Formats: sequence, structure tokens, C-alpha cells
Amino acid sequence: MPVESYAKLASVKDSKNIREISISEFFSKNRHLLGFDSPLKALLTAVREGVDNSLDACEEAAIMPEVTVTIQAESETQFCVTILDNGPGISKAHLGNIFAKLLYGSKFHRLRQSRGQQGIGISAAVMYGQMTTGKSAHVISKTGPKAITHEIELQIDTKKNAPKIIKEKENKDPAWAEKKSGTQISIHMEGAYKEGRHGVLSYMSQTALSNPHANILYIDPKGERHPFPRLVNTLPKAPEEIKRHPHGVEIGLLMQLLQDVKKETITAFLKREFSRVSQNTAEEILKTAGLAFSKSTQGFSRADAEKLYNAIQATKLLPPPTNCLSPLGEESLLKALYWFFVESKKWDAEEQVALIAPTEIEEKRGQSEFLFETPKTQIETHELEAGEDNSVASREEDYFVTAVTRPPFVYRGNPFQVEVGLFYGKGLKSDGLMQVYRYANRVPLQYQASACAMTKAAMAAPWKTYGLDQSKGALPTGPVVLVMHMASVWVPYTSESKEAIAHYPEILKEFRLALLEAGRRLQRYLKHQKRQADEAKKRGYIEKYLNPIGDALQEILKLTAAEKTKTVENLTVILEKNYGQKKSE
Amino acid sequence: MPVESYAKLASVKDSKNIREISISEFFSKNRHLLGFDSPLKALLTAVREGVDNSLDACEEAAIMPEVTVTIQAESETQFCVTILDNGPGISKAHLGNIFAKLLYGSKFHRLRQSRGQQGIGISAAVMYGQMTTGKSAHVISKTGPKAITHEIELQIDTKKNAPKIIKEKENKDPAWAEKKSGTQISIHMEGAYKEGRHGVLSYMSQTALSNPHANILYIDPKGERHPFPRLVNTLPKAPEEIKRHPHGVEIGLLMQLLQDVKKETITAFLKREFSRVSQNTAEEILKTAGLAFSKSTQGFSRADAEKLYNAIQATKLLPPPTNCLSPLGEESLLKALYWFFVESKKWDAEEQVALIAPTEIEEKRGQSEFLFETPKTQIETHELEAGEDNSVASREEDYFVTAVTRPPFVYRGNPFQVEVGLFYGKGLKSDGLMQVYRYANRVPLQYQASACAMTKAAMAAPWKTYGLDQSKGALPTGPVVLVMHMASVWVPYTSESKEAIAHYPEILKEFRLALLEAGRRLQRYLKHQKRQADEAKKRGYIEKYLNPIGDALQEILKLTAAEKTKTVENLTVILEKNYGQKKSE
Repeated sequence: MPVESYAKLASVKDSKNIREISISEFFSKNRHLLGFDSPLKALLTAVREGVDNSLDACEEAAIMPEVTVTIQAESETQFCVTILDNGPGISKAHLGNIFAKLLYGSKFHRLRQSRGQQGIGISAAVMYGQMTTGKSAHVISKTGPKAITHEIELQIDTKKNAPKIIKEKENKDPAWAEKKSGTQISIHMEGAYKEGRHGVLSYMSQTALSNPHANILYIDPKGERHPFPRLVNTLPKAPEEIKRHPHGVEIGLLMQLLQDVKKETITAFLKREFSRVSQNTAEEILKTAGLAFSKSTQGFSRADAEKLYNAIQATKLLPPPTNCLSPLGEESLLKALYWFFVESKKWDAEEQVALIAPTEIEEKRGQSEFLFETPKTQIETHELEAGEDNSVASREEDYFVTAVTRPPFVYRGNPFQVEVGLFYGKGLKSDGLMQVYRYANRVPLQYQASACAMTKAAMAAPWKTYGLDQSKGALPTGPVVLVMHMASVWVPYTSESKEAIAHYPEILKEFRLALLEAGRRLQRYLKHQKRQADEAKKRGYIEKYLNPIGDALQEILKLTAAEKTKTVENLTVILEKNYGQKKSE
Repeated sequence: MPVESYAKLASVKDSKNIREISISEFFSKNRHLLGFDSPLKALLTAVREGVDNSLDACEEAAIMPEVTVTIQAESETQFCVTILDNGPGISKAHLGNIFAKLLYGSKFHRLRQSRGQQGIGISAAVMYGQMTTGKSAHVISKTGPKAITHEIELQIDTKKNAPKIIKEKENKDPAWAEKKSGTQISIHMEGAYKEGRHGVLSYMSQTALSNPHANILYIDPKGERHPFPRLVNTLPKAPEEIKRHPHGVEIGLLMQLLQDVKKETITAFLKREFSRVSQNTAEEILKTAGLAFSKSTQGFSRADAEKLYNAIQATKLLPPPTNCLSPLGEESLLKALYWFFVESKKWDAEEQVALIAPTEIEEKRGQSEFLFETPKTQIETHELEAGEDNSVASREEDYFVTAVTRPPFVYRGNPFQVEVGLFYGKGLKSDGLMQVYRYANRVPLQYQASACAMTKAAMAAPWKTYGLDQSKGALPTGPVVLVMHMASVWVPYTSESKEAIAHYPEILKEFRLALLEAGRRLQRYLKHQKRQADEAKKRGYIEKYLNPIGDALQEILKLTAAEKTKTVENLTVILEKNYGQKKSE
């Protein structure tokens, strides 16, 4: 291309070709950023986004979640993914935007733990389906027992990032007439189905583990039903929305907040806008800043904003409230692990299905009560030091479970809380690497393990000290499943596909502390196991050699048969006392 | 929170709180996705985005780029980053949107290699600066010798994702009056400055290596000037914009194109919209689809679109044109590596600065001519097999350089091309890991090496075979710098921070092929080196022992002094012939 046409191009460029790019166009081209980079992953991502939305919606409306996921094969490379829930439903006015507009939602602007964050996920799935098959998504929703059931077919106009309703009607299906409320979305998409560590079935089972209050049913492309019964009859503690903490606000945001606000005094502004700012605190901040308490928020200059910002940074404040978080809790984690690795193996499928559908569940929150029989009688509480009792171990069945939930912590003004659960033994391979199940706000993360802060923390713990084999820079070897969970008002994912957590030092440190505690408990169990094994071995020797010893003594000391029996009995008692255990045990 | 207030929350949510999130709000909260996750990285990212824009703008306007980057420390945690170029300038009407609106630009919608892709980068830097300091960005721009120089201060309204012009005026600075054209942007931002592998200085030097046609000057926070002189007096080959290739278009996009288009026949549509579709090809596709050649694009049904889509997939087509790419080329890579690791070390700083500013440069494209003296006389071409000659080696100076540019390849309809350059020896540590410089469209990638397809390819090459030490799963050890470059109309970055390339199998394979070729050349050089070292050792022995042998022979055979000298001479000739080298060499 000669120089002239280049110059022409440059001038053309400067007028016509520069234009706005819609967020939909952006993500349509960069779909790997959203988890749609391969047909295999696309199916999983769509399921995840749908299930996240369903569980969030149910919990916000205080409904015990019932979620059914169905994947149907329409051809070798095309599938239909359907997610049905009993959530509060979505009013007709919002249906289009919720499902076919990227960056639209209620969760982005508030500080409260939830699965969804950005208002991108499910619309991205609809967009991917449309791009790869040309077909519309299909939504049914009902907002209450007497409400109309709406049914719509919709597409996304990627140039405008706006929904296009293709068809809408009232749904007259008697199955929907019976429901109190709920939503169903079906998306046709190019995909590939394969089970395994990264597969949908594995995702569903991990989701059940972190959501024991949900009833989950998964129907795979072969039509096989995989039920994951509800294990606990109460909703988790509801996370509450909190206000911004002053220390987490940068000067740019502060200036914008001052600009956006209606006219009020700066004292009122500080008290209304932020958490942990009382009348006294507000006055203290303003004194430090050298600003009048009654100064108006109107016409606030940059210089004054900077004074205010510096004064906020210099003022001591309580850390943000942490009722915005809802971790699983040690009890739930412990019991869920026990169910998945021990109890459920003893149940047959029908009994499990029976657990699934208790029609009337008291919708309450608080102390969880597990629906299967609490295994207290079957489990001997392992002798741990006082106050460290959230572990159970069974010598007979050869397993150990423990859970550690850390107190909340804060980074960049965002409260977060981490927890780990560990299952050792029974049914797991002893020569494989530790399996790590990563979770963020109860959502399992299946891809990009090596990029995740949780994996980094798990590899960095001193497992060798705790009795497991471990090579440098690798996870330990042994029959262990490790569950790691980060609950936060804002999860710093490394990409919008929400697969790994960024390496913030505060997060790594909290996980390390939780892992060290769980590791020490495992260490005590393994030591105890080893001691018992050693004793059993010794007692074996005693049993084996005591009679020959008796015979020998009889010969040497010229004992009668009775004297010999008596001597052997005495020896047995003494030896058993020394080893502290009875044979019959 | 009791259940009632929960239900209330759910209903409130359904009306008031659901709202659109602007792309600026999204990225302001998720700034780590754009490379602004730490103060250290923020400075580098801002520089990168500015330099990318400057180089793209110059090359599009066929101007030999002159770019000056200045970082000034305003406090310990606040810096001002300024990027000045001699590009074509930006008209006043576009200034605001270019610098303070995310997802706005000319590069997103076209198929042509460029550094910028998304229209996010520089506006993200402006936004980050504003959020962390509250200050406006400052832009000066001039579009031609007689044009007015505009100067504006601007901010970004993150709620609307739109620019706010704070101040604007005509710039009367004589320095600008002298300039033909150009743009300067200054951004105040929170930052931290540190030199090192991930630092700005390292980035500038790597940028100079991949842009030998640019004159680059970097002034660091201490005021120290780091010149990177222009090494070649012509612009790189201009990449041309191409149309979409039919095989890279999914059905969803096809349907949208059909909808957006003005009324025309489907034959005309296919020919106009796509590359590699002639009248004959269009008719062939339509025959296969069972559609009339004269069918209108208006009212195209989904069913017909699907027929058309399937017919396109079933039709054999030429691969897309590859003049949309502009790789560095083997010669440039080779010479740039030679300059950086050999030649520049011999020059003093003043000579280098003299190279920097040739005021009149012929603005032409084509065969590049290097501005420093071509080192042909100093370099002995290493004896390679015929046709594989893009390597130079110097035994005296102990180095080897080679470069391999692969032919273009296509994935998902996107042409791309990979190349590698390898420098071995002189001045590099022999016990360190191989240094890998990764590039995409001439932009150095400094972070997330372990997540990048290029690193994966580099680690997977059989370096042991080629004469380097290598542990499993690691880069090899040795005095080696490896440059890897992917040139593409669309680079699949793993995140918008543009730090690593996704693991597409086609990309991995192309890099592997390039690496194997470069590796085999290195192997021949190292073998040759080893052979020479062995010979030198042997010749050392000859020199050392030949005279004593002469003395011994004289004594044994009773030779005269002349006979002895003759014998030693003959022996020397024979031995030297056997080792194929002369002592004087």
C-alpha cells in the first residue's frame, strides 16, 4: 500500500470508522473471557450461570431452593440447556433485560455476598447460544401463586446490547399453574458433553456439597437422573447489605459521590453514605479536614475533596460490619463432607430421592438441622485438645473430617471470610494427589486451578509436617479431599469467567491460617492412627508368643499346669496395662 | 434478618435496584482485569496503552514514529505519566471520546493487525488516574502543520461512560507551533516505581527491540534519559484491512449481518461482505443451499439462514488473505537482536543519541535498511546447511543469533503468524534460565508468563537435544534470550490486561514448529563450537609436545639439526591437516 492511500486511510479513520463498541459486541468477540472458549466449557458455563441465578434468587426471597438442570442433546454438536427453579420469579417488565442485556442487574452496586456479581453471566449464555445456533432463548416465569405465567422467546441485539422479544404469550401448562412461583430458562447452544473432573455432573455434585439446603436434580444428555437431596432444612444465614466503609473509598469515588448527591450538609452526607460514621466521627473527620460541619455538598471543590479524603484516611474507624457475609460454617461443612463421603454411600438411590422432596419445609433461618440422621452415634469424637472439637473420626470406618471457618477479615474496604474442610481416608485413593474443591460464595470453581490463590495456598501449606507426602511445588499425596471457600462481598476473580481468584496477599494469608489449623488436626488424627497401629502390632506379638513363653517358663521353672496358666494370665494383664488397650476392643 | 424483611427486599429488588451497569463502572470495580491491580503495574499499564496508541497512529499515517515517555514523581505514591508522539493528531471532535470513553475506537471492528484492539486501554488509564487522584487528564493534539493545537483537560463520567471536558483552549506553545502534528497525554495516578524485569525501563527496551523503526526516548522519575535510537529507516510493511472469511462466521453473526444490511440480492451480499467469494463461488454456495441467486436479503428467515450457513461450511474456499499481517521478519529480528546484545555495547551513549534524530527520513516502506553499519564484515556467517541461512555467529566474540518467521496460518477465520528469534552467548549468564521475551503484535508482554501459550511452547521444546540443560516442566538453562512474537488480526488474550495469550492448539503448534527450527540451528552452532573447542585443545597438545618430540626423535634417530627441523615441520603439517585448521586462524 503506497503512502498516499495510507494517509487517506488515516483521515477516513478519523471521521467515519471510530465508533462506540457495545459491551455485547466486545464479549461476543472475546467470549473466552466469559468462559465460552470451548464447546465443552460452554455447556458448563451456561449451567453455572443459570444455577447461580436460581440459588441467589431463592435465597433472597427466603425460599428453600429446588433447582432442576436438564441438558438435552439436539445433535452431536448442539445441546439445549434448561434450568428450572422455584424462585420468586421475574416480572414481565424485567425479563428481557435480565436475560438478554449484558451488565444489567441488582448485584453489582451493593455490598453483600452473592453468587452473581456483574450482571453478565446468563445474558452471555443467551448470546453465545444465539451466535452459535441462531436460535432464541426461551424463558418461563411466574411471580406468585395467582400471577400469570409469562412465556417469552428472546434474542439479544448485540449492536445495542438490548433484548429483542421474538414471541410472548401466557403459559397455560397445568404444571406451571400448580407452582407458587419460579423461573425456567432454556438455551440452545453449540457444545460438547463429557463427564469428568471439569464436567457438569462433577459441578452439580460440588454445588450440592456447598448448598446443603438446596434440592438439586440433574438430568444428563442420556436422560439419566442424578438427584442431590437437600440435607438441611433451613436457609443459610441471610447476608445483609452494608454501606461502603470510608477507608475503602478512593478520592475519585468520593468526588463522584459528592457530585451525585442531592444538596445536604457534609456531616449528613458522611453519616448517610458510609458505614461506621456516627455524628461524632463525622465531626472528628471534618475537624481534621478543616471543613465546616454545615458545609454543603454542592459545589465541593477538588481541593476540599482532597482535604476530606486525607482526613478520612487519618481517622481511626471501626472495621466494616461483617453481617454481609454468609459462610458455610464449620458444622455445615463437616456434615456435608460426612454425607458425601460416608453416609450417602450407605443409602440406596430411592432413599436419597425420598430425602429430596419434603413438600412442606419450614422456611426459617438459623441453626441448621440435617435431614439425615445425625451420625453422632456412629462417630467417635476424636480426642482433640479442648476447644478444637470440630472434627469427627471413626477408627472402625477409617476416616477423619474437620472444618475450620476463619473470622471475617477486610481488604480494600471489602469484608471477606475463608473456610476449609478436610476429609481423609475411606474410599479415597491413597496414592493420588490431594483433591482440592475450590469455592467462591458457594460456587464451585472448576477451571484454572493453577492460576488460583486457593491452589497456591494449598500447595504452600506444610503437609509433610502433618503426615502426608509432598513434593516441592506440588499438592500433597494421600486419600484427602480439601474444600476451600471464600465468602466475600466482592470476589476478585482473575477474569469474568469466574474460575480463579487473584493472588491478594490478605486472601492467601487467611487461607494459610485456616489450612494450618486443619493440618494440625489431621496430624493429631494420623499420629493417633499410627500409635494405634503400632500397639495393635505389639499386641499381636504378645498373643502370638505368650503361650510359647508360658510353655518355656513351665519347663524352666518346673511349674504346674495351673501355675503356668496363672503366670500367663498375669503377664497378659501387665502387658495389656502397659499398652493401655483391651483385646476385646 | 427475619423472613418478612427478606421478602420485602426481594420485591424492592425487582423494581428499583435492578439497573444497567456502565462499562466504566464495571471496569472501575474490576480494574485488575485491565492491568491496574497494583500501583507498580498501574504505571506500566498506562505507559503501555499510551505507547501502543502512539505507534499505531504513526504507522497508520505512514509517519516514522518518535515517542517520548516521561514519568514524573509528584509524591511517593503519586506520579504523572506523559506520552508524546509525532502521530497524525486527533481532531477536536474525537479527543474526548478517544481518551475518556471505554469501548470506543476504530480497531475493534476491522480485521487488520494492530497493537490496540478493544478501544479500552488509554481511557482505562485516564479512569484509573481520576479514581486514585481525583485529577483530570491533560491532552494536547495537533492534526497538521497549519492546524490549531488544541489543549483540553478531561475526566470520564463513569456512570455514563462519557467524557467530561473540564477545560479547553488553544495551545500557543512555540514548541507545538514547530511540530507538524502530534498528540500528548498526561495522566496523574497513584503508582509505585521500581525497575526490574517487570518495570517500565525493561518494557521500553523490549519495545525498542520489536519496533526498530521507532525513535523512543524514556525519561524516568529521577530525570535520567534512556534513548532507544531508531535502527531502521523504513516503516514496516503496512497491514491491510481484510473482509471476514466465510468459514470464520457463525450462524448468529450471519443472521445479524443479513438483518443489518440494506436490501440487496443474496449473491451481491455474499460477494460484498466476505473475502474469497467471487460470482462463481457465491452461485456455488447458493446452489448448495437451494436458494435463488436473486433472493433478497430482506426478510431472510432463520431456516434459510441455516441453509446458507451449512452451504458455506460445505463449500471449499481459498484461505483468507494474509496481507492483513505485518510480522517483524527474520532479517529485522536478527538485526535487532544483534544490535541489542552486541553492537549497542560497543557504542557510547552520544553516538547512539546521534542515531536517534535524523530529521529527514524518507518515509517509505519495504526492504528495511539498518541505520547502524551492517555488521557483515564483523560476522562470519555460520556454516549452515543450504537455505537455512538466517543465522549469524561469531566465534571470536562468542555469540550466535538466529530468527525464524513461520508462514501465516488461520484459526477461526483469523490469520496469524508466529516468529521466534534466539540470541546465544556473549554477555549473558550461562547458569540462568533462558529469558523469554513475549510479544503480540509488536507489544511486549511482561506479566502472567506462566499463563501464556508462548511460555508453554517454549518449555515444551526439546532443548536438551539442542545442547542446553533442561529440567522437566521448566525452561532450559543457558546464556539464551528467546524472542517470541505472534502477529494476528485478533490476539486471544487471556484477559483485557493483555498479558498472556490463550492456549489455542493452532498457536501452540505454530510456535513449536518455529522453535524446533531455531533449536536445530542452535544445535549446529553448539556442536560446531564444541568441535572447535576440542580441536583447539588437541592443537594445544601438538604445540606443546612437538618440540620435545623433535628432540627425542633427533636423539633416537641421530638426526642433524636440519633434519630435526624438517621432521617437526612435516609432522606439524600432517597433524594440522588432520585437524583441518591453521594455527594462525
